[in-house]
Amino acid sequence: MMKKAAIVGASGYSGEELVRLLLAHPQAELSAVTSRQYAGQTVAQIFPKFAHYPRARALRFSEPNCELLAKQAEVVFLALPHGVAAEFAAPLLQLGCQVIDLSADFRLKSAAVYREFYTHDHPAPDLLNNSVYGLPEIHRDQLKNASLIASPGCYPTSILLPAIPLVKAKLINPHSLIADSLSGVSGAGRKAELDYLFVECNESLRPYGVPKHRHLSEIEEQLALAAGGKVTIQFTPHLVPVNRGILTTIYAAPAEHFNDTAGAARLGEKVGACYAEAYGDEPFIRLLDGKALPDTKNVAGTNVIEIAWRLDPRTGRLIVMSALDNIVKGASGQAVQSFNILCGFPETTGLI
Amino acid sequence: MMKKAAIVGASGYSGEELVRLLLAHPQAELSAVTSRQYAGQTVAQIFPKFAHYPRARALRFSEPNCELLAKQAEVVFLALPHGVAAEFAAPLLQLGCQVIDLSADFRLKSAAVYREFYTHDHPAPDLLNNSVYGLPEIHRDQLKNASLIASPGCYPTSILLPAIPLVKAKLINPHSLIADSLSGVSGAGRKAELDYLFVECNESLRPYGVPKHRHLSEIEEQLALAAGGKVTIQFTPHLVPVNRGILTTIYAAPAEHFNDTAGAARLGEKVGACYAEAYGDEPFIRLLDGKALPDTKNVAGTNVIEIAWRLDPRTGRLIVMSALDNIVKGASGQAVQSFNILCGFPETTGLI
Amino acid sequence: MMKKAAIVGASGYSGEELVRLLLAHPQAELSAVTSRQYAGQTVAQIFPKFAHYPRARALRFSEPNCELLAKQAEVVFLALPHGVAAEFAAPLLQLGCQVIDLSADFRLKSAAVYREFYTHDHPAPDLLNNSVYGLPEIHRDQLKNASLIASPGCYPTSILLPAIPLVKAKLINPHSLIADSLSGVSGAGRKAELDYLFVECNESLRPYGVPKHRHLSEIEEQLALAAGGKVTIQFTPHLVPVNRGILTTIYAAPAEHFNDTAGAARLGEKVGACYAEAYGDEPFIRLLDGKALPDTKNVAGTNVIEIAWRLDPRTGRLIVMSALDNIVKGASGQAVQSFNILCGFPETTGLI
Amino acid sequence: MMKKAAIVGASGYSGEELVRLLLAHPQAELSAVTSRQYAGQTVAQIFPKFAHYPRARALRFSEPNCELLAKQAEVVFLALPHGVAAEFAAPLLQLGCQVIDLSADFRLKSAAVYREFYTHDHPAPDLLNNSVYGLPEIHRDQLKNASLIASPGCYPTSILLPAIPLVKAKLINPHSLIADSLSGVSGAGRKAELDYLFVECNESLRPYGVPKHRHLSEIEEQLALAAGGKVTIQFTPHLVPVNRGILTTIYAAPAEHFNDTAGAARLGEKVGACYAEAYGDEPFIRLLDGKALPDTKNVAGTNVIEIAWRLDPRTGRLIVMSALDNIVKGASGQAVQSFNILCGFPETTGLI
Repeated sequence: MMKKAAIVGASGYSGEELVRLLLAHPQAELSAVTSRQYAGQTVAQIFPKFAHYPRARALRFSEPNCELLAKQAEVVFLALPHGVAAEFAAPLLQLGCQVIDLSADFRLKSAAVYREFYTHDHPAPDLLNNSVYGLPEIHRDQLKNASLIASPGCYPTSILLPAIPLVKAKLINPHSLIADSLSGVSGAGRKAELDYLFVECNESLRPYGVPKHRHLSEIEEQLALAAGGKVTIQFTPHLVPVNRGILTTIYAAPAEHFNDTAGAARLGEKVGACYAEAYGDEPFIRLLDGKALPDTKNVAGTNVIEIAWRLDPRTGRLIVMSALDNIVKGASGQAVQSFNILCGFPETTGLI
Repeated sequence: MMKKAAIVGASGYSGEELVRLLLAHPQAELSAVTSRQYAGQTVAQIFPKFAHYPRARALRFSEPNCELLAKQAEVVFLALPHGVAAEFAAPLLQLGCQVIDLSADFRLKSAAVYREFYTHDHPAPDLLNNSVYGLPEIHRDQLKNASLIASPGCYPTSILLPAIPLVKAKLINPHSLIADSLSGVSGAGRKAELDYLFVECNESLRPYGVPKHRHLSEIEEQLALAAGGKVTIQFTPHLVPVNRGILTTIYAAPAEHFNDTAGAARLGEKVGACYAEAYGDEPFIRLLDGKALPDTKNVAGTNVIEIAWRLDPRTGRLIVMSALDNIVKGASGQAVQSFNILCGFPETTGLI
Repeated sequence: MMKKAAIVGASGYSGEELVRLLLAHPQAELSAVTSRQYAGQTVAQIFPKFAHYPRARALRFSEPNCELLAKQAEVVFLALPHGVAAEFAAPLLQLGCQVIDLSADFRLKSAAVYREFYTHDHPAPDLLNNSVYGLPEIHRDQLKNASLIASPGCYPTSILLPAIPLVKAKLINPHSLIADSLSGVSGAGRKAELDYLFVECNESLRPYGVPKHRHLSEIEEQLALAAGGKVTIQFTPHLVPVNRGILTTIYAAPAEHFNDTAGAARLGEKVGACYAEAYGDEPFIRLLDGKALPDTKNVAGTNVIEIAWRLDPRTGRLIVMSALDNIVKGASGQAVQSFNILCGFPETTGLI
Repeated sequence: MMKKAAIVGASGYSGEELVRLLLAHPQAELSAVTSRQYAGQTVAQIFPKFAHYPRARALRFSEPNCELLAKQAEVVFLALPHGVAAEFAAPLLQLGCQVIDLSADFRLKSAAVYREFYTHDHPAPDLLNNSVYGLPEIHRDQLKNASLIASPGCYPTSILLPAIPLVKAKLINPHSLIADSLSGVSGAGRKAELDYLFVECNESLRPYGVPKHRHLSEIEEQLALAAGGKVTIQFTPHLVPVNRGILTTIYAAPAEHFNDTAGAARLGEKVGACYAEAYGDEPFIRLLDGKALPDTKNVAGTNVIEIAWRLDPRTGRLIVMSALDNIVKGASGQAVQSFNILCGFPETTGLI
């Protein structure tokens, strides 16, 4: 069985990656792609690297038009800027499409939190309660019957997947969480801004958005769900000169105090068991063992997140590290994973 | 007045940078450079980029020989691997040289801590008490009359300079310190190892040495001096694909609790005053104001460290960020700064 | 139908890429991988990025042993250094395997030319006449029945595919050919040498092997086949800081003189027709039209080569540019393309 | 003696590098910098890396105003886009300033050639004959008394310096020249365009401007001066992922035919003597000997150009390779070198 899928806003990095994944997907037919900028040109003309797909040579970008899209596709991916996605989601849902939105527009349940972090009113607050946060390893069951999926941000994915099992199992104090993240430049999007020029990024390491980055809103809302109560954490993003990849290092105070190697060993068994139970069978989560630590080059281009952890008997802290590709597991790959769940396909279809 | 200076082990990245700085130094005469590997060849042959200096075309690398070095130079820089430097320091000191060591051999006061972190006995424990830790902004007075200067490590410099004033002023709880650092690949030295090949580092972000990196020993010893008692901290280094630069983000719990913007403003005045008093006149410390945050590209090739800080009313934490060039302020530039102090030259000579 | 395939020497960059391609190949069973260095460890341990394949978690590297390999595999890929591959090819062929060699050992027909360029006698000269040069677009028919395939070098592929149709059609003077190539650092192999450290390659552009690089031998031998007589050309390789990719710019004097746009247009029709006829239906050759020029980022990770050309009425020259991924179309992808031909599979199997 | 110097258009990469060089110049006083975009802000605010200079903290960008500039400075550097520079040069010259223009506006003698390559009429054709092409190694004497210096382009410098001595000595056929160049991304200027984003340039190798790049006009005009007659050459620029650096490989047919090592040796003596005579005493030209080949990392940040050459007895061609920093010897450093000549300072002042 094939599913017809469309992409609205296919000219950015997430859109381009959706094009790549859906062209190669054995059960998806990429039936429409829209881009105001590129309307009329073929996918192969704009993205020569896909030109070996006959579909890429045939399919032309069109102006976005919801009525037309609803005729062309059963599932519509929105790869649009924050705020713009909401304008498309409502009509598409009414016209009977299932919508997978990669923007931040429907990730929060609370319109008030949205206003606090995005500094304007939410454009479609009534839809917030209908959307499902598209983190399949956490919300798989709800995704099966979703009509509107809010695919998570790249930083949130790199923090939530390692943190949620520990929070749920009450192994750590959620308020102690500090997440220090490094992101490749594609995370800034395909935008013509001086800050993201090659010369400005190459040989540059820099923090930004300190101390209140917008992604904190969805991170804290999801952690609150896991903890059963409000959670506030620390998060610092850094821009580093790679194309793809997020490396996150998380610091947490365990609920159970330890200050020697014996204590670390006891707690380590619990942490190991917690992750094994939560993720032991997950196809896209690689729990590292032995001396291995995450490295973004081992996940680039894939939908995999690597996770490793260490207990430090000197400080009594737990350190958890994760690596993912911000454009795949952090955006488009994860969206296709949700698409597979939604369509009843095996979850790894087109992703391994 | 000119001072004769020699470099032992001038073939690594720190050695090469010492060559650069001393060739350009208006009051230093680079009188000898040693390298077993390159003995007999001129500096210009090994480092073509210095060939426009007549001295680089004339000066040849020699085999290291302490008696000869003592005749050639008043001050000897040791740019040798850990453990090897100590073999040269003792005889050179006895022969009347002043020694500036860039290795870790004389940075600690405690031979026991050295053994714990370096896993072998210290080769010259009696010299540990004679050495001065070469962080000029902290130990300037002692450096004036030092015979043996232990120049700090790159990570320690990036952590200690931002942290010490706060610890001294008791504005933060020193045990709460978490330092998350990103380092360019030159920090690994000029070593032919697979891990540091271009292909292995480019498009790679990875933590390493978690949770007990060797540099913790000197960081904690210096913090203890500032705090007036033992300090244990968290430190996580990461390898990122730049040639030069360390970016450190420090998380600390202020001694004074705050949880709103008014509290942050009150504490912020104290933090700002603390830094202004400690570093307001320092030529190599750039305290950033306004919205500016540190960026390694603004310090590359210079002896400057950039420092900025933020108070987060949501979490009650202080975040301090620093950027430096690991080979200059983190190694050779700082060593030349100490050299200037030792020789009675203006501290910025040859460095600005 | 599945084909059992083994890789000898699977620890270098070409070997790793063969592992990637064969793990994903729907008609290949990766039955053995050898590596002296990694014997006993699983593929997933050495290459974590393949760990989501169950086969990678099960398959262990073994010591290379021809008798065992002949029992395990029908087709054996040799990803070994030049000179070493020949030691394996002869016994494997005798034991009935088909061999696809990625080294230079069997690319030349002439043992004398081998001696001239590789400075030692060929270790198995009698096999030279049995091998087929594995450039599918040129030697497809011979590859169908080959027992020993010599897969081309990365630079030769980037030069021969654009040049051979023009030489065959006598549109250019083959002796006028100048090929100026830029290569990513993976082309140097996974070797622990100072020259290929991140710090030595990043922010570095440098020619090497001027004027007589070893790859000239196979380039000139293949051009001679196309021209029907001896050919000598100019070739300059450069090392540039990318992981993957070769960009080649070729300068040639057309057989037909022109010095204005009308002449260029007439000749242009012939050049366009020549390429269209030679490669119009090739799945892995992308002939660019309009204003597009090759870019290695459009072919990275794929088996595609991009080709574009321009006629310059000012100089009367033809300029042809190509881009490929040196590890895929320049090595392992092309080897799998030959494997597909050898096995009677559709040529794009596992490659698109 | 100090000279007052101003920079018009100091916000691009060349302007920023002029700021760096003039702040450090012992005989220049940076008296004014203009930038519409940054007017009112200090140099230190816009370029934090210069903040350790007191002058950078005091000096503010102003709106460009010729009358004011003429009062503030004796020498005015124009670091403006092509076409804009001419609007400032004429009034500044009339007001008595000496002008050093880094744009292409005054590099050509022929307004017709300007129109052909820049596709519009020259805005101040009467000034073309008054300007001196600022290649000090070639036009040193004329620069001493120039009022308007047209500082060369980065590609032209990398081609002309290696080629002119050979052309003048009639050792090569100038019409045979092919120049294949690689440029770092700063060559494109600080412009917010998608093509120069980090993600678009990193892991990308691409030719552009084929076959008629604008810089050909000044290259051919200068070669014609050296050859004593019209010259047409081939030139292909490529964009590669480094911040700084141009690597040029030049192919030429020697006037004297050779086809063996003896012939190469005879011709090699003449080529070596030609370069030694032309450049043996030049402080900024490094003639490489032995096996050394140019590498941009050996010239980055300096005003030096590296040159090496090889004769190929197989093809009878001469290959000459050069490396320079496109922003220093290719732009601002060379402009300061001309400034030193103009002012009667030692030519290396502030540059070594």
